[in-house]
Amino acid sequence: MIQSIALVTLGVGELERAKAFYAALGWTPQREMDGTAFYQANGVVLVLWARAKLAEDMGIADDGATWSGIALAHNVPSKEDVDDITRRARDAGAEVTREPAETFYGGYAAGFRDLDGHAWEVAHNPGFGLMPDGSVDIGAEPR
Amino acid sequence: MIQSIALVTLGVGELERAKAFYAALGWTPQREMDGTAFYQANGVVLVLWARAKLAEDMGIADDGATWSGIALAHNVPSKEDVDDITRRARDAGAEVTREPAETFYGGYAAGFRDLDGHAWEVAHNPGFGLMPDGSVDIGAEPR
Repeated sequence: MIQSIALVTLGVGELERAKAFYAALGWTPQREMDGTAFYQANGVVLVLWARAKLAEDMGIADDGATWSGIALAHNVPSKEDVDDITRRARDAGAEVTREPAETFYGGYAAGFRDLDGHAWEVAHNPGFGLMPDGSVDIGAEPR
Repeated sequence: MIQSIALVTLGVGELERAKAFYAALGWTPQREMDGTAFYQANGVVLVLWARAKLAEDMGIADDGATWSGIALAHNVPSKEDVDDITRRARDAGAEVTREPAETFYGGYAAGFRDLDGHAWEVAHNPGFGLMPDGSVDIGAEPR
């Protein structure tokens, strides 16, 4: 697992309200689809997505208390990498919240929570360009 | 505010336990100081820090439920930028949890929570190299 965070997804109550807040700070999404807004930042991509959908996708039972409402994504070049990293995380004591499986966006991903409950997605997403340093370029606008 | 996330800080219960977990996944800290571990990733830096200290530093009353235990940091070139962004965030409805002030590490920072409670630090830190894209290089090891 190279040291990379491809995406930081913030679970939000109302997408339009959250988008308006980040717009007020000067952020502009490069891509929007399926009720999700993607903001290309410095290698990492900030994502706004409905908290309930994010929880469901991560396999997390969200009681509004024990989960942060944030997921960090580590993107990898192959399905085998997803399997391998998930196995290593489980062996190290992580709770695997989503077993490696195909995703609705045509990828393959797993989810786990680290020893303090912080949520990670490990994803192979052919729809995103994956850079050698582990960044993704969601890229309507080349940078 | 340019679109950047300089650091993602995970609040942890026991630093050594958390470090051992990330070591098992293949992560190596480039810098450790004051009970904090810094992992240089793809532009963004992953930081492990005691959750209680992170909460105190951010001005957050951590009841273990309504805060994520995660802080995103947006680093800027000047104190004036900290003041300006904090003002814009407040005007957009954010709760300012830490008014702009000098920090223990010789910088100047503020903290706010967005409309969904996600915590941001806005920091001017002369001790970190700030890249034009908003990344910091904590850099014992050049990349």
